[in-house]
Amino acid sequence: MKKILSIICLFFLFSACNETKSISTIKVSTIEELNKAINESTPGDNIVLANGIWKDVEIKFTGKGTKDNPITIKAETEGKVFIEGVSNLAFGGEYLEVSGLHFRNGYSPSENVIAFRIDENTIANNCKVTNCVIVDFNKLQRDDDDLWVQFYGRYNELSNCYLAGKTNGGPTVRVDLKGVQSIKNYHKIINNHFGPRPRKGGARGETIQLGSSFTSMSPSNTTIANNLFEECNGEVEIISSKTNFNEIRNNVFYKSEGSVVTRHGNYVTIDGNYFIGDGVNEQYGGIRIINTGHWVTNNYFFNLKGKSFRSPLAVMNGIPKSPLNRYNQVTDVVVAYNTYVNCSAPWQFGVGQNIAQADVLPKSEIRSARAIRTTVANNVVYNEKGLEHIVIENDKADGVTFKNNIVDNQGVNFKDFDGGIIPASLELKKIADNILIPTGVPNDVEAYHGFDFNTIERDLFGNSRKDSKTIGAVVGVDVVDPAILDTSKYGASWFSSEIETTAPVTHTVTKAEELQTKIAAANNGDIIAVADGVYEISKSLVINKTLTIQSEGTAQLVFSGASDTPLFSLQPKGKLTVHKMILKGNASNYAFASLKENMSNHFGLEVIDSEISNFNYVLRVYKQSYSEEITFKNTSIADCENGIELSEETNDRGDYNTEYLTIDNCDFNNVKQNVVDYYRGGYDESTIGGNLLVSNNTFTNCGAKEKNKRLLNHNGIVNVNITKNTFKNNPVEFVSILWGAKNNVESDNTLVNSGQIKTEENLVMTLMY
Amino acid sequence: MKKILSIICLFFLFSACNETKSISTIKVSTIEELNKAINESTPGDNIVLANGIWKDVEIKFTGKGTKDNPITIKAETEGKVFIEGVSNLAFGGEYLEVSGLHFRNGYSPSENVIAFRIDENTIANNCKVTNCVIVDFNKLQRDDDDLWVQFYGRYNELSNCYLAGKTNGGPTVRVDLKGVQSIKNYHKIINNHFGPRPRKGGARGETIQLGSSFTSMSPSNTTIANNLFEECNGEVEIISSKTNFNEIRNNVFYKSEGSVVTRHGNYVTIDGNYFIGDGVNEQYGGIRIINTGHWVTNNYFFNLKGKSFRSPLAVMNGIPKSPLNRYNQVTDVVVAYNTYVNCSAPWQFGVGQNIAQADVLPKSEIRSARAIRTTVANNVVYNEKGLEHIVIENDKADGVTFKNNIVDNQGVNFKDFDGGIIPASLELKKIADNILIPTGVPNDVEAYHGFDFNTIERDLFGNSRKDSKTIGAVVGVDVVDPAILDTSKYGASWFSSEIETTAPVTHTVTKAEELQTKIAAANNGDIIAVADGVYEISKSLVINKTLTIQSEGTAQLVFSGASDTPLFSLQPKGKLTVHKMILKGNASNYAFASLKENMSNHFGLEVIDSEISNFNYVLRVYKQSYSEEITFKNTSIADCENGIELSEETNDRGDYNTEYLTIDNCDFNNVKQNVVDYYRGGYDESTIGGNLLVSNNTFTNCGAKEKNKRLLNHNGIVNVNITKNTFKNNPVEFVSILWGAKNNVESDNTLVNSGQIKTEENLVMTLMY
Repeated sequence: MKKILSIICLFFLFSACNETKSISTIKVSTIEELNKAINESTPGDNIVLANGIWKDVEIKFTGKGTKDNPITIKAETEGKVFIEGVSNLAFGGEYLEVSGLHFRNGYSPSENVIAFRIDENTIANNCKVTNCVIVDFNKLQRDDDDLWVQFYGRYNELSNCYLAGKTNGGPTVRVDLKGVQSIKNYHKIINNHFGPRPRKGGARGETIQLGSSFTSMSPSNTTIANNLFEECNGEVEIISSKTNFNEIRNNVFYKSEGSVVTRHGNYVTIDGNYFIGDGVNEQYGGIRIINTGHWVTNNYFFNLKGKSFRSPLAVMNGIPKSPLNRYNQVTDVVVAYNTYVNCSAPWQFGVGQNIAQADVLPKSEIRSARAIRTTVANNVVYNEKGLEHIVIENDKADGVTFKNNIVDNQGVNFKDFDGGIIPASLELKKIADNILIPTGVPNDVEAYHGFDFNTIERDLFGNSRKDSKTIGAVVGVDVVDPAILDTSKYGASWFSSEIETTAPVTHTVTKAEELQTKIAAANNGDIIAVADGVYEISKSLVINKTLTIQSEGTAQLVFSGASDTPLFSLQPKGKLTVHKMILKGNASNYAFASLKENMSNHFGLEVIDSEISNFNYVLRVYKQSYSEEITFKNTSIADCENGIELSEETNDRGDYNTEYLTIDNCDFNNVKQNVVDYYRGGYDESTIGGNLLVSNNTFTNCGAKEKNKRLLNHNGIVNVNITKNTFKNNPVEFVSILWGAKNNVESDNTLVNSGQIKTEENLVMTLMY
Repeated sequence: MKKILSIICLFFLFSACNETKSISTIKVSTIEELNKAINESTPGDNIVLANGIWKDVEIKFTGKGTKDNPITIKAETEGKVFIEGVSNLAFGGEYLEVSGLHFRNGYSPSENVIAFRIDENTIANNCKVTNCVIVDFNKLQRDDDDLWVQFYGRYNELSNCYLAGKTNGGPTVRVDLKGVQSIKNYHKIINNHFGPRPRKGGARGETIQLGSSFTSMSPSNTTIANNLFEECNGEVEIISSKTNFNEIRNNVFYKSEGSVVTRHGNYVTIDGNYFIGDGVNEQYGGIRIINTGHWVTNNYFFNLKGKSFRSPLAVMNGIPKSPLNRYNQVTDVVVAYNTYVNCSAPWQFGVGQNIAQADVLPKSEIRSARAIRTTVANNVVYNEKGLEHIVIENDKADGVTFKNNIVDNQGVNFKDFDGGIIPASLELKKIADNILIPTGVPNDVEAYHGFDFNTIERDLFGNSRKDSKTIGAVVGVDVVDPAILDTSKYGASWFSSEIETTAPVTHTVTKAEELQTKIAAANNGDIIAVADGVYEISKSLVINKTLTIQSEGTAQLVFSGASDTPLFSLQPKGKLTVHKMILKGNASNYAFASLKENMSNHFGLEVIDSEISNFNYVLRVYKQSYSEEITFKNTSIADCENGIELSEETNDRGDYNTEYLTIDNCDFNNVKQNVVDYYRGGYDESTIGGNLLVSNNTFTNCGAKEKNKRLLNHNGIVNVNITKNTFKNNPVEFVSILWGAKNNVESDNTLVNSGQIKTEENLVMTLMY
């Protein structure tokens, strides 16, 4: 019977394929030819873009293909067509596909690089971008937000693409749901490689955002599956799900500083994903749960050291009767059949509880509503070192039912929640470098059968759970390495994100006039070795690549450049290491500064074993400039009007200028103000940065002109550690005012005639939302 | 091919039916027998309740039937089995059905009369209550809330039932969604007759509530179809939809003081319903829209005079970033193919806009967010008298697109919203008394084809819209009377809600001792004629039915009863008219009072052409007592400590003691305090009552002991009209303080030595939510 039906179906299929249709292949070399081809296209047409650079092109791909005969735009040779300059791509119509393009060396003139609509009335359905690459296609200013891929309409797809390097504001990919045309969209984001997204220094750095709080009541039904997320460090949320019925399946989150967050919306399925850490970095997160009805099943968490907001499972407290854009209570959530190996804080509940802050925050910001009607069952936890708590209760987990979870905690006792967490002795079976499966669950522990648990049909590897009573993410032990980090399985087939490392070349400089030319000629990663001697420099040295400038210790750069110009102009991608150099200014100019505008990519600065004196600013970082790390080490800083200045992000939207500012073993003398000034403004409970370490330094005679009478200014910085410093004769009221509610600490400091270090528990800040 | 398949299917079906199964019919006469039968029941069993009264029974119906072989509990004879006393019914299991029962003369011991669960772990699925009746099954106290039918689980049904007379707090029917077991429930509420639900005097009087704000993110998928709602006057919401994806189809709302409201939740379909008014009553509403994605299609609105919250289409303003339990913005709503005949205010937008109240309300209560992305298309409006506005904009309707709507406004001009509302001359074609269809839409006006409009497949009468370009609720004009008020189509087949009217009997009373005995013996609606003379009464007369007590004008009841006891004790269902009577007290007792407790049903009071003197209270209405109307007319009230007192609802939850208090052409003299004291507390924008009319009266020498120095106290009453009264020598500061923002007015009053009448625009009130 079945066979007969199949044959009939095949027959119809062949008939359909045999319909006579004149299908054209149209090769185009200019935007005008492309536009003409688009306008004239009919179902089945292939428009081929000639190899080469397409600069400043705004492609509006409209048309109506069919399911069997889409209209396609393809690269003549995959990866040999480059979209550069001020360019973008928009779809409007049905069954349109684009493949093989490489977006680079440019940015979008609009609010998105690729949009699945032309305008409000011309929306894309059943359209696809596949096998494309977008790298570093950033707007010039960090606050000039855009999206690289913006979904509208229904049934659209982003597949097998590689996207990396977004530094400006805005999620890399967003699904937009405003308007009934875009709900129940069943979009697919599949098989992509999301390469490194650097830290952004504040919010709006998600890799994927599904909707917004304003559409958080809408059914989205978007699938994000089989993608590799590698070093997606933009902000605390890698995927921010803000709508309903999304499915996040079988993805790999590899060394990514963030979490999958059900930020708004409900009924999201997070199934069969890998979250892989390195056992060290505490920024690598897992799954953070807010709202109702999510199912977290069959996921594997390895070597994650994240805590609180970044713990492998972070279940938040809600705000009672929360405003639309804040935190609804967690209800009706299921966490089942997951496996946690060597994670520091596998399960946290009541995350974000802030009842103690009721004095400084409005009632509508107090997260006091604990998770209810939530089930945690059939999970396996293995800790090579026993933890004090398996469940960390930031607030009581009394609305959570624990059933048949197995934990090997190396014999260390823990709270067992009415027997719902059972200690056992397990063995790890290594499947691959990052995949170690706990085995040996006692035979008498069978899976708890919760409501609708029969819908969890398969395990992490796709094997059937039918007839199996196994707990944890994996059924059975005879499994093969799923090769989750094999990059050939993700992204564009023609593109490799691996960069060939070349040995750095050392360029020796002996004359002042050589300095800029050799810097300009050097390749990324090279070394400029400055011979001993004094170099008079009158014009800023431009740094726009990774470079080390070093000497034997006595090379002296004397900068006579104009007031308010820097000796080293730190430009996009300019990552500078200064080693054993002596830098002198003319009292009115700067040692280091970023660009005032168009810092379209990050810079970096490390100063070691050096001497800096007689500048107006040691470092001046302008608004919208960002460096992942800034370090001063073993360096003396003397006789400067201003010190290290990173305080221009004053719009209080949570932004800041560097993730890590480290000042170690330095000697500050006679720096009159802004000795260290590092600012982050705006109340945002989920931002974790920045990080200030001030250790082993001596500050003498500094801060005389500091208006607010504080030597070290770090207002709003979440992590501050001031340790083992000596403060002597600094005419200030406070060396530092620490934020007690956050991770601000001090120890072993010596204060002589330098005011005091004070702790304020709760900082009054502007609400960001 | 198809035929072969069908035959095979039939074969399997027959095999299934032919399975041998011993099906029993078990007749039971006691609760013990019933419990035993339930415990032993297997699929297909019929448990038959013996005819008669089942008193104080708590039926827990557990078991597992199958789709083809449900377990049933049936009345021996439909309608001859009465559930009385303290009784209820709960289901737990699968495929269980109950039919033929009549709940009366009692109340539930629990929070519901019928519940689709036994407890949190024993929930009903695929269970059914059908062909049953619940009448007046009220808890004793109004504030003792319960539900008559509470849904849990999935796929349960309430069908062909008659429910009427609920007076205590709580919706008649609620679908509960707390817990994943109850989402996506696909419950059916079909073919029922929801008979009169009297005004409740405050909130919590819905006929059907689907979920609550706390589950407003959950998919409910409940269907409410083919029901008759008749005089469902409990409160402003007849159906309060608070969840997602509900369908409200083909119901008839007949003379019901309220609306279908999408109070919380989204994506509700309201299709093919009739809303029938009487052309007079302004309380009969239509559809009130809040939130996202609703479709209002194919509905018919006739003779509705409701405005603002009660207009046929009331689209509310939202609160920006609203708290969970308040008002989200309206977005993505479609209002298409509806017909409005002779409605006073067919379309209102920005309903509930309260920007002017920003001074007295917190920001989280200000409804300033207008509807966006909303389409109003293909509707027909016919007004026999032209209206000034077809669209009333309480706030700008600038987020609404109007397309191809046709209006016969009798030539009166109106704003046409970019041509989206087109004037035309139409004819009414009468299909039935309440169904008049506008015909004659000009041929050149064809239906606008909006996004997904092709999913509106049928019209009001179920006819196909395919290939039709007709606008309005009805395709074509050759339609037959749908007999929407034929009560045989709704409710229990064996029950008629029609009450036989009998002519009132007059019972003459000539001696004091006869009075109570004749009152007790009288039937509902009878008349007690008191012969002239003086009657010494020492004990309260109990009124618990509709009665008139009258005389020729000189019958005098002199009440010597104990302090704080009333001459007339107004008890549940006691609706008393006093005509031409003289009532005298002993200064410490009362003329009229409700019960202090257990006012399980409404009372009523009308006093005409009478004299009342020398009481402590003229009328004392205790907390939780309610009368739809209280009237004093042509009556003198003299020498009393207190007057008309209805001010004990002080919990500020929006409750009050009477809907209409009318005092007309009366003479108040020397009433020392609480002359008129009528209170409603709690800020609730959607409550419309109460109503106070004080007209043509004289107040002399009253209010001497009034502590707040106001003669007429009506704090929080929404509608107040004080007109054509004379106030003379009343030692108070204010005769009245009117609430300007609501409908409080005064006119043509004469004030002599009696303070003043003041208007306060915004009353500061307790927030209810």
